[in-house]
Formats: sequence, C-alpha cells, structure tokens
Amino acid sequence: MSDRMKKCTSICLPLSLEMEKQSMAETSHSFPSGLLPALGASSQQPIQKKLRRYIISPYNTRYRCWQNFLIPLVMYSAWISTFETGFLQEPIPPALSILDNILNAFFAIDIVLTFMVAYRDTRTYLLVDDPKRIALKYLSTWFIFDVSSTIPFQALVLLFTGNSGSGLMYNLLHILRLWRLRKVSALFARLEKDIRVNYFWLRCAKLICTTAFSIHIAGCFFYLLASRYKDPKNTWIGSSISPDFKETSLWERYVAAIYWSLTTLSSVGYGDIHPQNTQEMIFAIVYMMFNLGLTAYLIGNMTSLVVDDSTRTRKFRSMITEASSCASRNQLPDQLKNQIIDYLTLKFRTEGYQKQPLFDSLPSGLRLNILQYLFLPILEKTYLFQGVSCSFLLHLVSEVQAAYFPARHDIILQEEAPTDLYIVVSGAVELVFRRGGLEEKLVKEETGDMFGELGVLFNKPHEFRATTKMLSQLLILGRSALLEVLKSHVEDRQIVMANLSQIRL
Amino acid sequence: MSDRMKKCTSICLPLSLEMEKQSMAETSHSFPSGLLPALGASSQQPIQKKLRRYIISPYNTRYRCWQNFLIPLVMYSAWISTFETGFLQEPIPPALSILDNILNAFFAIDIVLTFMVAYRDTRTYLLVDDPKRIALKYLSTWFIFDVSSTIPFQALVLLFTGNSGSGLMYNLLHILRLWRLRKVSALFARLEKDIRVNYFWLRCAKLICTTAFSIHIAGCFFYLLASRYKDPKNTWIGSSISPDFKETSLWERYVAAIYWSLTTLSSVGYGDIHPQNTQEMIFAIVYMMFNLGLTAYLIGNMTSLVVDDSTRTRKFRSMITEASSCASRNQLPDQLKNQIIDYLTLKFRTEGYQKQPLFDSLPSGLRLNILQYLFLPILEKTYLFQGVSCSFLLHLVSEVQAAYFPARHDIILQEEAPTDLYIVVSGAVELVFRRGGLEEKLVKEETGDMFGELGVLFNKPHEFRATTKMLSQLLILGRSALLEVLKSHVEDRQIVMANLSQIRL
Amino acid sequence: MSDRMKKCTSICLPLSLEMEKQSMAETSHSFPSGLLPALGASSQQPIQKKLRRYIISPYNTRYRCWQNFLIPLVMYSAWISTFETGFLQEPIPPALSILDNILNAFFAIDIVLTFMVAYRDTRTYLLVDDPKRIALKYLSTWFIFDVSSTIPFQALVLLFTGNSGSGLMYNLLHILRLWRLRKVSALFARLEKDIRVNYFWLRCAKLICTTAFSIHIAGCFFYLLASRYKDPKNTWIGSSISPDFKETSLWERYVAAIYWSLTTLSSVGYGDIHPQNTQEMIFAIVYMMFNLGLTAYLIGNMTSLVVDDSTRTRKFRSMITEASSCASRNQLPDQLKNQIIDYLTLKFRTEGYQKQPLFDSLPSGLRLNILQYLFLPILEKTYLFQGVSCSFLLHLVSEVQAAYFPARHDIILQEEAPTDLYIVVSGAVELVFRRGGLEEKLVKEETGDMFGELGVLFNKPHEFRATTKMLSQLLILGRSALLEVLKSHVEDRQIVMANLSQIRL
Amino acid sequence: MSDRMKKCTSICLPLSLEMEKQSMAETSHSFPSGLLPALGASSQQPIQKKLRRYIISPYNTRYRCWQNFLIPLVMYSAWISTFETGFLQEPIPPALSILDNILNAFFAIDIVLTFMVAYRDTRTYLLVDDPKRIALKYLSTWFIFDVSSTIPFQALVLLFTGNSGSGLMYNLLHILRLWRLRKVSALFARLEKDIRVNYFWLRCAKLICTTAFSIHIAGCFFYLLASRYKDPKNTWIGSSISPDFKETSLWERYVAAIYWSLTTLSSVGYGDIHPQNTQEMIFAIVYMMFNLGLTAYLIGNMTSLVVDDSTRTRKFRSMITEASSCASRNQLPDQLKNQIIDYLTLKFRTEGYQKQPLFDSLPSGLRLNILQYLFLPILEKTYLFQGVSCSFLLHLVSEVQAAYFPARHDIILQEEAPTDLYIVVSGAVELVFRRGGLEEKLVKEETGDMFGELGVLFNKPHEFRATTKMLSQLLILGRSALLEVLKSHVEDRQIVMANLSQIRL
Repeated sequence: MSDRMKKCTSICLPLSLEMEKQSMAETSHSFPSGLLPALGASSQQPIQKKLRRYIISPYNTRYRCWQNFLIPLVMYSAWISTFETGFLQEPIPPALSILDNILNAFFAIDIVLTFMVAYRDTRTYLLVDDPKRIALKYLSTWFIFDVSSTIPFQALVLLFTGNSGSGLMYNLLHILRLWRLRKVSALFARLEKDIRVNYFWLRCAKLICTTAFSIHIAGCFFYLLASRYKDPKNTWIGSSISPDFKETSLWERYVAAIYWSLTTLSSVGYGDIHPQNTQEMIFAIVYMMFNLGLTAYLIGNMTSLVVDDSTRTRKFRSMITEASSCASRNQLPDQLKNQIIDYLTLKFRTEGYQKQPLFDSLPSGLRLNILQYLFLPILEKTYLFQGVSCSFLLHLVSEVQAAYFPARHDIILQEEAPTDLYIVVSGAVELVFRRGGLEEKLVKEETGDMFGELGVLFNKPHEFRATTKMLSQLLILGRSALLEVLKSHVEDRQIVMANLSQIRL
Repeated sequence: MSDRMKKCTSICLPLSLEMEKQSMAETSHSFPSGLLPALGASSQQPIQKKLRRYIISPYNTRYRCWQNFLIPLVMYSAWISTFETGFLQEPIPPALSILDNILNAFFAIDIVLTFMVAYRDTRTYLLVDDPKRIALKYLSTWFIFDVSSTIPFQALVLLFTGNSGSGLMYNLLHILRLWRLRKVSALFARLEKDIRVNYFWLRCAKLICTTAFSIHIAGCFFYLLASRYKDPKNTWIGSSISPDFKETSLWERYVAAIYWSLTTLSSVGYGDIHPQNTQEMIFAIVYMMFNLGLTAYLIGNMTSLVVDDSTRTRKFRSMITEASSCASRNQLPDQLKNQIIDYLTLKFRTEGYQKQPLFDSLPSGLRLNILQYLFLPILEKTYLFQGVSCSFLLHLVSEVQAAYFPARHDIILQEEAPTDLYIVVSGAVELVFRRGGLEEKLVKEETGDMFGELGVLFNKPHEFRATTKMLSQLLILGRSALLEVLKSHVEDRQIVMANLSQIRL
Repeated sequence: MSDRMKKCTSICLPLSLEMEKQSMAETSHSFPSGLLPALGASSQQPIQKKLRRYIISPYNTRYRCWQNFLIPLVMYSAWISTFETGFLQEPIPPALSILDNILNAFFAIDIVLTFMVAYRDTRTYLLVDDPKRIALKYLSTWFIFDVSSTIPFQALVLLFTGNSGSGLMYNLLHILRLWRLRKVSALFARLEKDIRVNYFWLRCAKLICTTAFSIHIAGCFFYLLASRYKDPKNTWIGSSISPDFKETSLWERYVAAIYWSLTTLSSVGYGDIHPQNTQEMIFAIVYMMFNLGLTAYLIGNMTSLVVDDSTRTRKFRSMITEASSCASRNQLPDQLKNQIIDYLTLKFRTEGYQKQPLFDSLPSGLRLNILQYLFLPILEKTYLFQGVSCSFLLHLVSEVQAAYFPARHDIILQEEAPTDLYIVVSGAVELVFRRGGLEEKLVKEETGDMFGELGVLFNKPHEFRATTKMLSQLLILGRSALLEVLKSHVEDRQIVMANLSQIRL
Repeated sequence: MSDRMKKCTSICLPLSLEMEKQSMAETSHSFPSGLLPALGASSQQPIQKKLRRYIISPYNTRYRCWQNFLIPLVMYSAWISTFETGFLQEPIPPALSILDNILNAFFAIDIVLTFMVAYRDTRTYLLVDDPKRIALKYLSTWFIFDVSSTIPFQALVLLFTGNSGSGLMYNLLHILRLWRLRKVSALFARLEKDIRVNYFWLRCAKLICTTAFSIHIAGCFFYLLASRYKDPKNTWIGSSISPDFKETSLWERYVAAIYWSLTTLSSVGYGDIHPQNTQEMIFAIVYMMFNLGLTAYLIGNMTSLVVDDSTRTRKFRSMITEASSCASRNQLPDQLKNQIIDYLTLKFRTEGYQKQPLFDSLPSGLRLNILQYLFLPILEKTYLFQGVSCSFLLHLVSEVQAAYFPARHDIILQEEAPTDLYIVVSGAVELVFRRGGLEEKLVKEETGDMFGELGVLFNKPHEFRATTKMLSQLLILGRSALLEVLKSHVEDRQIVMANLSQIRL
C-alpha cells in the first residue's frame, strides 16, 4: 500500500529538488516592474514585447547601475555648488573647477542616454519605445532643466570674456546644479518599494539627507548675505565672531554658519548668533517659515513609522484585555478565563489568525500546493485514509485546517454535536469516556492518531471529552466538508468505511 | 456566426461613440451638490425643483464666480486693516482710504445678494427659496457681523465730527474687517471635497495661510503696544533697535515686528528682541499660549497627511514580510515561497485586490456594463461559446474574474478537484499530462484558448498540471456559477455541449 | 382597498403621536449608566434594584449637581493655594483666609456625603449599597487624602500656637489642596462620553486647563525659590528685573513668573530671564523634563483629533482616485468612467454606504420599524401589491433597499439576467425596448411606478434597457428575496399574479 | 425531571471546583514562550523536548531572575562610566575603582553563563541546545563586545605600567561599558509583550530612560570638551560661570552641564550657556541633529499611545453622530431616533459588539464550554425544553445569542415574519395582542419565560407586539438554527411538541 502512496506523493509534489534550484533564479525576476498590460480589452498587445534596437529599457540592469553610480556624484555636486556660491566669491580654485567640469561631462552623457531610454506611459502603463515620442517627451519636460544644470558657465565665461567672473549673478548660476537632486529623490522612491531594504531606516535616511541639506543651504546663504553687506560690523558674523571675519579660516566660518543654521532649524535659538540687519531678518523669516513645515514633516513621518511599528503588539494587548474584562464581567470561572487567555496568547504567537487571510488571497493552485506540502504526509499516516486514491486525498487536503491548542484545554465536550474530526500532529490528547459512573481513558499521541471520526461519520454526539495533555498541534476536518468530498468519490468512500469497520471490530 | 455576434455586441454596448461625447459634458454635472431629498418617506417633494424668480441657487455658476472674485479682496482687506491698526495710527493716507471704501462697496453688494440666495436647511437637507425665510435666517445669524464689518467708519466719523479720528478705539474698529475671513475658510472647506485639487497641497496652503496671518496679526499688535507705551526706551523695539524707532522707515519696523512674531511662533526665541514691560509680557503670554495650540495643530495635520500617504506602501511591505516569515516558519521549500511572493507582488502591482471591493460597490447595471466591455470580446472568441445567445453571454460575463499569474506558476495540479475553468487572455500556459511514465505537453497561448473545461463540465479531477510559461493574464469562471448559468439557458446548454463534442472528436 | 391599507398602517405604526411625546422623556433616560448585570449566569439578581435608605446612587441627578457645583470651587482652591504658597509667604490676608475656610467647609460636607454614595464594583460591575462596604472602600482608598486636603491648617496653628506661622513647611501644606483636582479630571472623563458635548473642543479645553495649571504651578514655585534665596541679586528675578524685586507690585512679579514659565514650556526661551544659581537650574531641569512630556502629549492629542477629523474626506478622495486610475488602466471609455465617478460621488453624499452597517447592527424589531416607516407608503402605491395582506407587506418591506442613481445612468441592460425589480420613488427612468430595428420608449416617473417585474417573476432576461433621465431614487427588491416571500404567503401570491395579469391584458 | 437535569449539568460542566484550583496554577504556565514547532511538516520533532545537561533554557525562571538582577547594575555602570569619562580625568578615587571591579566580576560571570544558555534559531523558531553551536553563535556575534566591555582596564594598566593612567584615550575606554545597555533594551522589549504591565507607562518609562541618558552623556561630553580646551576663558563654562571653573564643586559643574544639555534637547535654548569655540560648536551641531530625531521619536511615540487610547470613545461617538444624522435626514420620528440611540448606547456599554468576534475566534470546544456555563441554566428553566436530552440542549446552547434591550423598545411587531424566538433572562417584556378592536396584554418577566415560539415553530406571523417595559436581557434563538437542531434530534422534537401542546391546552 505504501507503494501506491509514494507514487501519489511523487505525482503531486511539484518538481524534484534539483530542478527547483535552477528554475528559481529565473523565477524570482521573471517579470520586470511596470510592464503590465491592461485587463482583457487590450489583449491584442503582447505582454513582454521586445524593445527596438538602440532603445534601452528603464529596468535594464546596466542602466540602473549607471543611475546608481551617478547618485554620489549628484550629492557631491549639489553640496559643492551651494558651498561655492556662499563661501567662494573669489575665483574658484582651479582644482575644484576641473573636478566640476569632469562631473559635468558625466551628466552630459546622461542627457544623451535619456534620449535612448524607453518610458512608461502614465495613462496606459505601457512602455513607449518610439524614439520620436521619447525625444518629444523629454524635450517638452525636463530637457531644458537638465541642460541648464550641466552647462559649464565658468569655462564659457572665461572663453568669451577672458576673465573668470565673480559677480553675484554668476554665483547664483551654481544653484542650477541643485536640479540634479531629483535623481536622489527618484532613488528613494524606488527603494521604498524594495522589500530588501528596511523601511524604517530608509525613511530615516531620507529625512536626515533632506534636513542636512537644508541646513547646508541655509548656512551658505546666510554667510553670503553677511559677506556682501556694506557694513561688516552690522552682520551676524561680524558682531558675534569678529568684524574682520573674512580673515578667519574658511573652516571656522563654515562651522559658524552651519551652527547658526541648525540652531534655528532645531528651534533651540541660543541667541549668541542672530540676524543684525533687515536683510538678514528677512532671510531668517523665510527660513523659519520653511523650518516650521520641515519640522512638522519630520515629526509626521516619525509618527507614521512609530504607529506602524507598534500596531501588532497593541492589537494583541487590547484583545487580551478585552477577553479578560469580558470574562470577569460575566463572572466566568477562573479556569475558563485562563483557557481563553492561553488560547489567544498561543494564537498570537503562532500568528495563525493572520495566515488564514493570507492563504485565502492566494490562487487555488498555489494554495493547494502549499497545503499538500504541509498536510499530505499526515493524512497518509491516518488509518482511515489508508488505500484511498490520490485525487481523494488532494481534494481532502484543501479542506484541512491546522491549529495549536495549549495544555489542559477542552477540545471536545461529551455529548457535543459532531462538527469536526481531529488528527494529532504532535502533542497528546486524552479522551475520557464517562458512562454511568465509570470512566475510561484513552490517549492519542502518535502523529496520525485520529478522534471524533465516529461521531462525524455516523452523525451522533461525541461519546467522550477530549482534553489536551500538553501543547498540541491538531489538524481539523469539518464534517460538512468531509461528507461533501466523500460524496463525490464513491469508491474511496467504500475504502474509508472498510477501514473504519476494521478498527471497530 | 460572426454576424450574430456583432449584433449582440451592438445591442449590448451602450451607445455609439459620437453620442457619448455629446452627452458626457452634461452627465458630469448632472446633479448639483447638496440637492438630495430624504429617503422614501418624503417622496412627495420633486427632486430638482425650480427655484422662485429672483432667487439664486447657491450652486449657481455665476454666483460661485462672484464668491471666488471676493476671495482676494477679502484677503487684502484683512491684511491691510490689521496693518493700519498696528502701524498707521496717524491719519490713514487718502489713497488707502479710497481703496478701502471701494472694497466696502463690493461687500455691501454681497450683503444685498445674500438676501436673494437660497440656503440648504440643515435638518432636511433641502434648499429653501422662500424670501422671507432666507431673510429671517440671515438676519438672525450673520447679518449683523457682515454689516458691521462693512460700515466705512472713517468716512462716517469725518462726516459727523469733521476730523478724521485716530483714537485707539477707532483703530480697533478695523479689526471687525477680519470677520470677512470666514469666506476664505468656506472656500477651503469646499475645495477639500473637490477631487481635482491635490489634497496634500491644499491642506498645506490652508496651514500656511493660517500661520502667515497669525504672524502678521501678532506683529502688528506687538508694534501697537510699543508705539503707545509711555516710555519708548522701555519697549521691545526701543531697546533693541533704537529709542527713536518712530523715525526709522515703516518697512524696517514692519520687518522687525514680523521677525519677532515668527521667532516666537517657531519657538526659536533668539532673545535679541523680547518683551520689556509687563504689558508686553502679558501679550507674549497670550501669544505663546496660542502658538502652542497652533504648532500642535500644524504637526497634527502634517502627520495625518504623511500617515495617509504611506499607508499603501506599508501595507504591501507588511504583507510580504508576513508571507515570507510564515513560509520560513513552516519550512516551505524555497520554490513555493518564491511563488507566493511573486504572486503577491504581482497582485499589488495590478491592484486587483482593491478593484474587487470597488466593483462590488457599484450597482449591477453599471458593473455589467463594465464587465461586458472588458470581457465579452474574449468570451466570444472561445470555441466553447460559439453560437450561443447574447443573453447567455451577458449572464456569463457577470461571473467572470480576471487575474494575472507570474511566470512558472502552478495554476492547476494533476488530480486536483475541478473548481474553475480558465481562458487565456495573454501569455502562455503549458499543460502537462502525465499518465503512467509518459508525459505529454500542450501549450495554450492564443487569446481565447481554454483549459479545464472537461473537468468542470463532467466533474472529474483535472488530468494535467497547468503551469504558466510567462506572465499571463487569465479569465476564471467558477464551476458552480457556470453550471447555474447553463441550467437557466437550456438551448444554449445544448450548443455548448455540441461545441464540446466537436472538439473531442 | 385603501380602507384596509389604512388599518394595516395603523396596526403597524408604533404608537399614536400623542403618546410618543409623553413616553419619550422617560425613554431617553430609562437606564442609568453602569447598572448592567452580567450575562445569563447571574440572572438571579434584579436589574434595577432599589438602593437602601439613605444611600444615594452615584447617578442621582441632585448628587451630580452637587458635584458640578464643587468643580469651580476646586479650580479656585487649586489656583489660590499654589499662589499663596509661592507669593504670600507673609501672613495671608484675613479675607483670603476666611474664604479658604468656607471652601474647606464645603469639601468637608462632600467627605461626609461620600460615605452615603453607592459605588460600582469594578469586578462585577454592580452597584454596592452596603454602608459598611462603602465606608471600608472609602477609608482604604482616598479618605486620607481627602481629609488632609481639607484640614484648615492655618486656623489650627493659630489656635494652638497663638501666632499664624509662615514657615516653608507650612506653606507647602497648601499643596495638599491640589488633591482636589481629581474631581476635575473625573468630570472630563465623564464629559468625553457625553455625545452632547463636542469632542474636539472638550479635548482642547482639557489640554488648555492642564497646560495653564502647569504654567501657574511652575511660575509660583520658581518665584518661591528666588524669594527664599540668600543672595537676591543672584536670582532670576533679581538679575533681570531689579535686586529689590520684593518692592515691586505683586502683579508685576506674578506676570514675570508666568512669563518665564510659559517661555520655557513653549520652548521659546528668549533668555532674558533664566536660572542664575544651581538651585534654580535644578528646578529648570525638572520642569523642562516635564515639558518634553507635556508637549509630546499635547501634539499627540491634537494629531489624534485631526486624523480623526479628516478621515471621511480622505476615504472618499482615495476611493475616487482609485476608481479613475482603475478605469484608465483598463482603458474604459470615458462614458463608463464618468458613470462610475458620478455614482461614487452620489453615494458618498447620500452616505448610503455607511447606513447599511448601521442598520445591520440594529435588532430586527427596530430595523423593521424604521423600514416600514420609510418604505411601506411606497410599496402600497404600486399596482402589483394592491390588496395584499399586511403581513405580506411587512415581510416584503424588510427586503427592500433604497438607492440613488445619477442622471443618464444605466440601471438595466437589455438581455441582462433578471436579478432585481425596481420601484420609482422620485425622478424619472426611461425604458427603451429595441426589437429588430424598432425602438420603443416608455418613461416611468410616478412614485410607485415599477419596472423589471416581468423578468423577475417569470425568470427571463429583461427586454429593455433602463436609463435614468435625471437624479432618481429607486427602491430595489432582489429576485430571490421576493420569491422567498411569495412562497410563504400563498394567498398573497395569487393576488400579486392577478394584479400582474390585469396589467398585461 | 430535575434529577436528570442535574446529571446533565454535572456531565457537561468541566471539572469540580476543587480540582480546578489545583490544576490552574499549572495551566497558566503550561507553555513557555517561543517553543513552538513548525506546522505539519516538521511533526517528527517532539514539542517540549528536554534540554541537554548543563544547558539552561532562556525561559528558565532562575536565569530570568539573574538577568533582572543585572539590570540595575547595568544602569549604574553605564551612568558612572560616562560620568568618570567626563568629569574625573584625575585618577579615579579607589572606592569607585573597587566598586567598578566588583561589577566587572558579575558581568564576567554572565559571559560564562551565556555559553550554557540555549538560543532560539531565527529561521526554524526551535531551541538549539548543542553547546558547540551555542558557543559558535556567541563567539561570532556579541562575545567580543561583551568581553571588551568587561575588561578592568585600570587594573591592567596599574599592573603593567605601575601608574594609573589618565590619558584621554584611557578615559574613552570607559565608553565601552555602554555596550551593556543592550540588556536594558532587551528587557523593555520583553516587558512590552507582558500584559500584566501597563503599556502606556512602560513606553513612557522607556522614553524617559532614553532621554535622561542622552542628556547625561551629552552633558558629560560637553564638560570634557571644556576641561581639555587650551583657553579656559573661551569655553562655555569658563565664560558663563567663571574662568576658574575647575575650582568650583563637582556638583555645580555637573548641574551646569546637565542644565545646558537639557536646555538644548528641549530646544528651549535660553542662551545663557552656549558654545564658545569651534570645537564646541561642532559638538553642539551633532547633538542638535540627534535631538531633532529624538524629539520626533518622542512625539511619534506619544501620538501613537494617545491615538490608541481614545479610539474606542471616538468610534462610539461617530457611530451615534452618524445614526442621528441619518435619522434626521430621513425625517424619522423622534421616537424611532431615540430607540436607535438608546440601543446603540446600551450596546456600547455592554460591549456586546466586541464580544461576538472574540467568541468567533475561539475553538469550538472552548466556546461551547463558555456558552453552556452562561446559558444552560436558563434554557433548562424554560417550559419548552423540559425533559429533553442533554445532547439536545448542548447542541441548542451553541446557537443562542444574548442581547440587552433598553426600556420601551419594540422587539417584535405584530404581523412580523417569525425569525427569532426570545427567552427572558431578566427585565420584563409586554406582549400586546390586538385583534379587531380589542387589546389583550400579557407580561413576561420571569427568568425562562419565552415568547415567539408559536410563530417560529408553526411558521406564521407573530400575533402580538412585544415591547420591553424596562431594561431587559433576552436570549435569542434563530428560527433556522432551532429547526436544524430539532431535525437532528427526533426524540427530543416530540418532547418539545408535547410540551408545547400542554401549554396551549
């Protein structure tokens, strides 16, 4: 008989293990994100269509690497361009200038590349690989910004006028470099959907970057105001550090500016450095207004993360509290109350109550696959289902549910109407038959031991009380489901009945 | 046969496209907001009743334009009246004064108009167009405030006393103009329900307006206190800027006041400007108390917006985390685990699990209309439903569900009980028949290809394993639903069976 | 026939209107809060048992009034006792002292009363009216605090020592009065459950009271530290106002203390007043630590209120956004998309989707009562249900659902399977019969007009398309529910069929 | 007959009370946390396996005590080591040094113990008791940190070099002691899942500890910076207290440092103490950045706690508001509206609507046990179920539902279709039979009184209206459930019918 069983398992179980490993690597990346067609109606379009020649998919691995390689360059370039604007009004040192232009070259390459990358249409959610439409879309949206953030102004000025300009306007042109930061923002948006990255720390990193950069920008700008003010004594840095502040080291001045900036943003406001003239006051007003928003945004994000984090624990706690208050309001005996709380705690630990909705949302083929992997070996061990057909077992297994029961927990009461049949997976269950004044005991503790089958199959009240002796894991098979399955497998029904009568004799 | 099909589609599909465009413009505005009668009981009242002559509906487009036109006037008038109160104790310049009175004229017109606008009864939710009741309601609620915020006090004083007064009380009368701000508040309330406006930015705009105006008011009032204090040296502005602060430019003084106000509100509190006498301290106490509330309100709003924003992403993440922890706790093989995660990710992308409840909430006529648009062309392509009646297809289409399956995903296991029949929309599915030691393969990849129909119609276990070869979209038709439909269409049943037998031969 | 109908309505409708008014006053207060017994098991206990003589129920109206009368006294006494501790180290003025003792008398009466008030057992939720148990419980919990907060120390000291003491310890005894504040806290807890009070403003009031009182206490204590410090110059007030600060008016000193306290709590921290010696620093440390918690609590509460407030609007918005993104992803024609959005908007306005769960949670008798009030008059107007029995209508009415449909909305498609029968309440519905190339139109616009009854009763596809011409309200009657009701009322079934055949002829 | 009843109860009720008490103590700790095996598949593993000799379970009570005993030592050691680093650059006093080494000894013991404690595998959730694997895991993770935080550096230095070093590096080694704090963090994580501890206060305690310790560390470090700066005048403490600050008492210096630290963290920032040189500014920048995060985290946590706290109250309020707005929109008479609100309020108080899902989540055996405890005595009292079998009652009891009804509430309307049968537990219900013009009244007020049974058993409309006279508690038995139970107990059915006919005669 075990021979047939094996065949059954081998048919049912998906694939041999060797094949699996191989196929898995492909499986896990089998569909690129964002390549889904519309439902039904647009079925004339192939799903994974090949892109045209020279057109790159935005989900191409190499293109993604290139994008990721640009991220540190973007961050450095945003930092340095703000710094130059604020602190280096004198001609920028040649070393910096050369580095700048190398970066610009990289970004120029990226602009050219963008003309070759397909994009996803926001209305149809389909990839567009028509070079004309790609070019049109890019030219009509971000092209102008990308180009103006890449032009090497200094070099151009030097070329045409012969001297490297140092006017305020010229400095402000550096600000255009900040446009590149949208690449960083896009990276964060992408990472948020990547489950391999911890969500909490990702959000924190994003907030820290935003905050740090705001502080840097405000600091540079605040210094710019002071350095260009007519009366150096009447500026924040002139009055707090020294009127000849331009003589002190760049490092000291930068720290002081950042220090002021952060003191304001964190709303500490010691007051040792504060705006001195109307110009500085106006800038401080704008900055503080912005800070109000930023702080609220920081706190809002943190709250959102914290609330999310503690939800599960709090749910469990409120469930237990409710259960015990309900028990004491109805004056249930302590034993019942303890059974309730034990059961709920166990359920929370095994997370069983969250698995059911997860299972329900899976398609039937996959669900069946899982159930058969988990429960088929157990069902094959029971005496009742010896010799039945593979199809019968497969049908039955989809109706099985697993549950943990704490020790000393009543599973069946004597005289209870038969609704379920139980199979022991592990642990031990004690059956107590009480007839007249006599008490008989029976222990079921082998994997595959079954109880309640007589009541269920002959529809009569259970003749015993069943209590767990220790933490036990049982499979539960509902009466109506079992009868339904038996009805549609007539041959197997006779085998089951034969098995049953053998035992009873 | 295709002839009949076309007829069927033409009957079923709603209207020809030309008609649609025309009707749409009307459709989208077919019911004004807030015109709903009570349920059942009050059916004696017509729904869209004509209003009386000379009575305007509050939902009248022209009236709405007028209201929107008043908004900037309201904002200017609120800003200038506070500013005048604080900074212009000397007679107000004639130019400003004339502008003021022009504005007043507009608001006077609005007061007259209000007597002609129907209002919605808060108890019955019905529009009231009885002029007497309108007048009564207006007179008993806001009329007195509207009038007193519109009276041109300055002109009146000038008329009766001959000199333009400049007393404190007189200045404070300007504050009454602030009453007009309730129009702005009403606008925001209306926009919040308008889905064309981005909710996040709308709320931000509202918060920024509130904050900016609070700062302005506090700044003006703080200056008012200083300018009327007996000892100019012992005021905030006298001690921080110069004792002869009244000589400095209006702009400088205004900036300083706003700067102090914002420094306090954002709780930065540098301390370079701070209250000097008891009067100023008391005002600062009141203002800081108010700020505590405002800051908490700002943060609360931002949190609410952020939490809302990130909910969907976090839900998906927690679902995946749970699934994979459940898989590893139960020691499922990696292949199954990957299938689960692939499936859930795909489902999240296609948002299918959110569409179902949306569909369920629609009325049956509309739902049927959508389903027929999406799935009828597919059903007509299948061999099984060739030649059936239009009514049969329409009945069937309401039972169809669409789903995406990732590549290498098991849809049907061999020997599985037949519960569903599948129709390929796109992608490819491989059927593997394993009998004895032999393996036969069959690929279904045309739109309209069907599998599982034999199992479903003859109620026997499926004889093959079905696995997707690539990302596929399938229609699913449940067995019980199909049988139900077949039962109520006897003729079509015979056609279906005939189609089936043709194929099998 | 209308004669019989009237009888039917008169039987069914609850009570005549005169009786209602009378009974209502009693109804709305028919059960005191907290008097609920346990479920089933403890049925031997009467529910509304009479309390013993001289024992007052805590829900007694007069006792509640007394409690509410004490609230302002409590607040005044808490304020004045802290103030005395901080600012009035010199002998307290006789006027204040007498007022104090009058208040003490009131609180002494309250202590005596408490011995006569029944309490609710926290385990069984039952009222305990045994004087011994009441006394025991009071004595073992709050009695000692209540008494020590009521003893007139000053009078006692004067009596025994002959001079009115002014030591620090003596002053600190006043702090015991703060114990009384738990009465205020209990009041707020009670009001929160009272639906007549606006929740938002109640919570705000509670937070404002808490904050204001914290500020007051901290201010008084900070002044106490300064006034008792050995070197007046080296205190916060000595260094910021004047070393001889004790000569300045009480009002100025109190304002300065409150000003410092609030500056610290709101974290503005101008720095014009700050701790000068180690003692003051330690107090500031404790106070700032407390403030951190209080501020977080304030913001947390505000967030909770704001989130709650905006939930409904945001739900609607996300529903609409989802619907329209789903429509455009599936490339539904604009007409269908508009119908979906129109329908959802209408549903949101009529709040229908929230009423259903509300109705479902009501007990069947009450639900039937409401449905009959709303829909019976409509059902009686339809030709199909002329002459049927009252019991039949009552049964039918519980199966009816009401819905609004926007204008130009498809309700029934031609050839659709019959699932529902519709009755017009208001608005107008156009039926279009298309047979061959001919089109017939029919308009249903009278209250009680019905369509779809032929399809439903004879189970054949609808022969027409039904479209609303304007905003319409319809009653919907499901086919299976209708057939079920007809089955159990054989006589009425014949009447219905007779009515039907009359029309068709 | 009562004889048989008793037998029934004695069989059904779980155990005699004496046995219970005894068994309970064991029950409540019958499964250690975290000892759960996987579902189905891994059934070959015994559930509660014995650990090997000399290996301790991490859930061992004595081991837990040892861990808890270490907590205060950890906290003291973290505090003192930071303090020593900051303030005691001179050789540490011998008393402190000895205490340090005693502590180190305890932690050394803990390190040794860890090699003997089983750990839970994070993949399989099983306890690992293999000494080699335990050692390997510990050595590869935390061993190195634990050891380096325990080495008595001072003693070692003294031993090898002969003089007790006091270099900066040497001081910084103390920081390693902070590693021990992870034990405190683990304790909090454990307590959060312990329902005996109040969640709100636990979270508060955790936040306070974190905050207090951050303040302490920052204070110590800030002082360290000042004490090592070359120019004492140009430090925060030198400029604000006195240039010879090293002469002042340790206490004063510590308070000043903590005062500055907290002023910064709470963002009060008076400005009396502030960074003076670049070094201090940089530290302040780092600290303020950290504070931003900490403050947001504090507020986020508090919000999460507050939101959770007020959810239940707000739910109730919104339910009531919705109900009454729905009632007035549909112009329901006041009586109906009052009945709705009364009912909802009562339901909220009895928490019945939360008990149902709780019950549903319990396993059938336990649920039956509770229901039988609550309702069996009532069922046995009814005339209809006199003499029926125990099994019948047990089956019936699982279908019973309990509900409270407010006074003057309609339970059954005359002519209503029979869906439920009611049994009075307490309170009083009035039945009014209105036939022709006559009115007959009947009051049911005894526990066990029943009404509606005729309608339910003979399937005819109820002949009376039933209204509660006072707050009543009723059991409800659905018609279909009752008929189902009667069908499967043929003998009992005859007894019930006999009982019924006896009464009717």
